[in-house]
Amino acid sequence: MSTKGKVIKCKAAIAWEAGKPLSIEEVEVAPPKAHEVRVQIIAASVCRSDTYVINPAFKEGLLPVILGHECAGIVESVGPGVNNFKPGDKVIPLYVPHCRKCKFCQSPLTNFCTKFSEHKNPIIEQELMDDKTSRFTCKGKSIYHFLGISAFSQYTVVKDINLAKIDDDANLKRVCLIGCGFSTGYGAAINDAKVTPGSTCAVFGLGGVGLSAVIGCKTAGASRIIAVDINSDKFAKAKALGATDCLNPRELNKPVQDVIVEMTNGGVDFAIDCAGGSEVMKATVDCTTVGWGSCTFVGVNVNDKGLTISPVELILGRTLRGSSFGGWDVDTVPKLVSDYKNGKFNLEALVTHTLPFEKINEALDLLKQGKRWVYFQHLSVENIYAWQSADARRSQQLHQ
Amino acid sequence: MSTKGKVIKCKAAIAWEAGKPLSIEEVEVAPPKAHEVRVQIIAASVCRSDTYVINPAFKEGLLPVILGHECAGIVESVGPGVNNFKPGDKVIPLYVPHCRKCKFCQSPLTNFCTKFSEHKNPIIEQELMDDKTSRFTCKGKSIYHFLGISAFSQYTVVKDINLAKIDDDANLKRVCLIGCGFSTGYGAAINDAKVTPGSTCAVFGLGGVGLSAVIGCKTAGASRIIAVDINSDKFAKAKALGATDCLNPRELNKPVQDVIVEMTNGGVDFAIDCAGGSEVMKATVDCTTVGWGSCTFVGVNVNDKGLTISPVELILGRTLRGSSFGGWDVDTVPKLVSDYKNGKFNLEALVTHTLPFEKINEALDLLKQGKRWVYFQHLSVENIYAWQSADARRSQQLHQ
Ligand SMILES: [Zn+2]
Ligand SMILES: [Zn+2]
Ligand SMILES: [Zn+2]
Ligand SMILES: [Zn+2]
Repeated sequence: MSTKGKVIKCKAAIAWEAGKPLSIEEVEVAPPKAHEVRVQIIAASVCRSDTYVINPAFKEGLLPVILGHECAGIVESVGPGVNNFKPGDKVIPLYVPHCRKCKFCQSPLTNFCTKFSEHKNPIIEQELMDDKTSRFTCKGKSIYHFLGISAFSQYTVVKDINLAKIDDDANLKRVCLIGCGFSTGYGAAINDAKVTPGSTCAVFGLGGVGLSAVIGCKTAGASRIIAVDINSDKFAKAKALGATDCLNPRELNKPVQDVIVEMTNGGVDFAIDCAGGSEVMKATVDCTTVGWGSCTFVGVNVNDKGLTISPVELILGRTLRGSSFGGWDVDTVPKLVSDYKNGKFNLEALVTHTLPFEKINEALDLLKQGKRWVYFQHLSVENIYAWQSADARRSQQLHQ
Repeated sequence: MSTKGKVIKCKAAIAWEAGKPLSIEEVEVAPPKAHEVRVQIIAASVCRSDTYVINPAFKEGLLPVILGHECAGIVESVGPGVNNFKPGDKVIPLYVPHCRKCKFCQSPLTNFCTKFSEHKNPIIEQELMDDKTSRFTCKGKSIYHFLGISAFSQYTVVKDINLAKIDDDANLKRVCLIGCGFSTGYGAAINDAKVTPGSTCAVFGLGGVGLSAVIGCKTAGASRIIAVDINSDKFAKAKALGATDCLNPRELNKPVQDVIVEMTNGGVDFAIDCAGGSEVMKATVDCTTVGWGSCTFVGVNVNDKGLTISPVELILGRTLRGSSFGGWDVDTVPKLVSDYKNGKFNLEALVTHTLPFEKINEALDLLKQGKRWVYFQHLSVENIYAWQSADARRSQQLHQ
């Protein structure tokens, strides 16, 4: 019996209060309105950004909320005006919208869309649908959406401009990683830094994003990949994924950038900052070679004072750029899913744990300890996967 | 009678003391040693960098010195091992060397050369020849070279790696501008920013470099060029060269970057900072559009604290790069000379004054007042040309 047009009752993890565990409850998910799609979430992971709005130090988070934004699922039904999706389509929701109408969407130069910029803080940008209401109700209360996705629910409602249609044979339990962290790091190397064959690279921060940047450098043919983290536990995985050298700044007797410059006889060709913060940003610039050093910034530490750079550092030939969701959008993510299927890169290695949906709080705790989780969710709740995460102390970063 | 192998006696302007006028004296110019070329200077101009080392506030300048580094001339004789030049060749000396051997010279990505980096301050890099002696003597005293060029002498000695051979029919009285300022600004737009047809641009600082950046934007096909200076006297010339709008930050009631963002419905595609200093660097970033805003930094204010930038400004899609001598080198400057001959750009409009060599101090005074001078020099000293300069208050910039 079709659920189309009807309210769906299902399980979701609700954040009622900042600093408290999530609570798995029965929620009502309203049918999609115009240009919205209701999606059955099949697999999802935990990302640093999920913990951001429920951090008691962050005052702007709207509660109660259903978190989660790294997932994959299947279209259950579509609202009026939705032409690109039909029930049964496999999809990956993206927090980066793609309206196809603004000047940014019409340019090949960026994955930015004006629809993403309406709130001063993108982390709480999409807490309601366009009609300023929520599709979630629990115990009679309206529950906020999160980043337009709310993946920690068996069903969710997403705008059609936030949805990538992927291959029918896509393995949702793996490609859910493409929803945020993997694409962010891999794309930073491939699309933004445009790492070249035979080049030398440095990657700062070995969470899911940083390890994915290592995969990107490797896939691009870098001959040397220097991986940096203050947690040496990350190094085995980084090496398995392609890092040729690993450095822990806390175990060095001089600044890590000086060590990298010495190791590479003048500095690397490409440096990618997947950690954030003034100190790491500075090291990212300083570890690159004069002449053509390319510095790509992925990590955002919103409370940090940022990077201070002298014009001389730029004039000697360095380039600085930011990278957001690795430059991908709903039109290019399907290619990434195909590339995975065709063996261009490996996602298995990134998964470290598997937990049932009921253990979502255990997953969040492991995230805080420096692990990164992927959980697998179904109508009959099944398994959870986890993967490596950057150091938990950097808990206020946007996308780690 | 050939002067080859002999000491040449000629006129040169000598800076004996910081803060004092230059003194035109008879100097002895020794013959070129290995990989050196003796050049008769035919035309030259005054550049901000010339005044830098004789500013009493600058402690590192080596005196006495023969200043000048923007010039064109004719090869008089060559030292041992010089194969690319012969007497009679027209040449432009460049302060940027090109050894053709280092990894930078062998890459198309940069005009940087390791030969330029041996001193911590490039402004006083090349005060002696490679054998650590000078070719200039005056009243029995050895006189320092300046930036490897010392253009304020009727004859000078230059390393062959600092010399561009140009067309025999080149107009030296005009292409001397290619020796520093014109190439720096024009190349920043063409080679580094890579301004695209139909784009919107902002240029900060309308000295010789900034006006040349305006020419570069115009030549690249920009549809809108917003020129910014705190001296409105520059605007007529800027408009004649292609600026569509001119802004004086001192005549605005809000920050110039806000005005530019409003004028362009979100910010320009390309911004080029030809002024330098924290405030202008910040405006350069902030006036560009999210998505693909390109920021190119040419001006260097060495005593300034530089640019502080948040990662969010980068992640929203901006790119920052520096530009040094517009990306040109001794191998590509000859093409620029041909482009001038073929009418690709106009150098006449940049010349504002003409003075005889004897009036070199008057030229330097005009430079301080915000004018920029080109003087024409010959064995029988002739005329001087001058062109627009950025505001004189920014007197400590490297290349203005
Ligand atoms: Zn859009
Ligand atoms: Zn995320
Ligand atoms: Zn070289
Ligand atoms: Zn100069």
